[in-house]
Amino acid sequence: MTVTRDDVVAAAARLAGLVRRTPALRVPALDAQAGAAVWLKCENLQDVGAFKARGALHAALRLSPEARARGLVTYSSGNHAQAVAAAARRLGVPATIAMPVDAPAVKVRGVEALGGVIVRAGTTSTERRAAALEVVARTGGALIEPFDDDDVIAGQGTATLELLEQVADAGEALDALAVPVGGGGLLAGAALACAGTGVAVWAVEPVAADAMGRSLAAGERVAVTPGPTIADGLKPVQVGARNLAIARAHVAGAVTVDDAEIGRAVVALLLHGKVLAEPSGAAALAAALAGLPGRPARVGVIISGGNVEPALVAHLLAEHAGA
Amino acid sequence: MTVTRDDVVAAAARLAGLVRRTPALRVPALDAQAGAAVWLKCENLQDVGAFKARGALHAALRLSPEARARGLVTYSSGNHAQAVAAAARRLGVPATIAMPVDAPAVKVRGVEALGGVIVRAGTTSTERRAAALEVVARTGGALIEPFDDDDVIAGQGTATLELLEQVADAGEALDALAVPVGGGGLLAGAALACAGTGVAVWAVEPVAADAMGRSLAAGERVAVTPGPTIADGLKPVQVGARNLAIARAHVAGAVTVDDAEIGRAVVALLLHGKVLAEPSGAAALAAALAGLPGRPARVGVIISGGNVEPALVAHLLAEHAGA
Repeated sequence: MTVTRDDVVAAAARLAGLVRRTPALRVPALDAQAGAAVWLKCENLQDVGAFKARGALHAALRLSPEARARGLVTYSSGNHAQAVAAAARRLGVPATIAMPVDAPAVKVRGVEALGGVIVRAGTTSTERRAAALEVVARTGGALIEPFDDDDVIAGQGTATLELLEQVADAGEALDALAVPVGGGGLLAGAALACAGTGVAVWAVEPVAADAMGRSLAAGERVAVTPGPTIADGLKPVQVGARNLAIARAHVAGAVTVDDAEIGRAVVALLLHGKVLAEPSGAAALAAALAGLPGRPARVGVIISGGNVEPALVAHLLAEHAGA
Repeated sequence: MTVTRDDVVAAAARLAGLVRRTPALRVPALDAQAGAAVWLKCENLQDVGAFKARGALHAALRLSPEARARGLVTYSSGNHAQAVAAAARRLGVPATIAMPVDAPAVKVRGVEALGGVIVRAGTTSTERRAAALEVVARTGGALIEPFDDDDVIAGQGTATLELLEQVADAGEALDALAVPVGGGGLLAGAALACAGTGVAVWAVEPVAADAMGRSLAAGERVAVTPGPTIADGLKPVQVGARNLAIARAHVAGAVTVDDAEIGRAVVALLLHGKVLAEPSGAAALAAALAGLPGRPARVGVIISGGNVEPALVAHLLAEHAGA
């Protein structure tokens, strides 16, 4: 493990002015539900609607101009696809994204609207990665990994670094931070950003896809078969190797939330906080509302993204707000 | 007309640290729809979910300590009720609010949750105001007018003053600003904040409740009978006298939007911008998306509030996003 807090600080300097400094919101009604003071770091208001904009652009900025000119390549069924397409557009280079044949039309359109070229590749992450590597071999393009990469991790960590600054600017300090976990890029970055600060970082996963919790318990990467969950961004088969190593060194532990808790968190955030999170993006809030271990008094929560189908929003409102 | 831009600047100094500096969001997909660069001043993320927090607290701060101690009194069926209750709670004094007998339960609960005492008074604004004046006569409390008041207007203007600063901090300047109009408090404050800056301020009203447009055309206050509109916060029978005088001096003109345009703006803001506005709060965005007169290139939009029934959000998603 070579990436450190200093790398997150350096990433923030490289990304300054190129990604959004998203707001850190306070919502009294959510504080009351959580029994804690909660700061919501709204990465749903980030470019492309998710924190993924940070890591993808940072990794692209770290390439040599020659490597970058041959284009960016990645594989993703979710927000990382749009993030790489957006980074390539900003840098004026091509982007090729391997997406599953059953990718939602809204995500395909999102990538295409940003000028990305889509290669359809099976339905599994393994098939997508193979297709992306084939593009790299053919074009000499640079593969931007979704999470298991030092530059991606350092980039994602800048969200947490900003949050710590925003809380400090308000004259406060966090006791704990809740972070949603898929492959572990956001978590690893958050853990590095909090290293040495005394902030307890908690990994939050769906009960149906708890690869990080199981891996932390086993002390090594454990593959899982994700069950159904509305948190579609938190369903990798296993977490990244770098991500687990950083988590083992710097994370307080892992907790799980179920779909009902996630759905209620989406609705509470929307009606009380007036911001829209996708289910994956509200998972950490769900954990904070349920109460983190040790009941910390001042809790940061990363709202990681806001890209969600309109029909799902309407469904969750009907289910949890009686709409 | 004695209130000026200096009063808005002074109000901002008094309110510093007591109300939120709400974000000014940029949303590329909305820029594309509007054919302009749009800055969204998100007062739906303000305390109590609306800009009303500013004017109510500013008016309360301008009272002498003796007057303030006798309590705040107002009349409102909407966000001003919660704003006065919140101001009173912050200042540690009682609040009494005259609300209609048919007030929505969610708004009654909102006032009660903030410690406000509710007096039920008929169904019209005239009945509510009479009930509030009776409370003032009995208790010696201070009436906080909803919009036709210099201190309320100066307080509401601080939202626009912040937006101008935020745009300038980004190295830009606005050509125009779109502001939703009910009684005209937000508009008058915005017009004062923009006085001398070269920003063209546009009043935006529902077609069914265009009291400001008719009054500007007539050169005097014209009472209207508001028709049905989902923009329930933009339905006063007539605008304020001070508000019209300021608008006549400083506003470029008035435009109208219909319910379908407002509904589409709510949905576009939610899905692309990830923030929730109430219909009244999205009216100015609807006007910007339709194109303001003269097609200004750089447009500010005040998103004035976000307090909306969950069922209406679900209905608008079904109608305008196919949810």
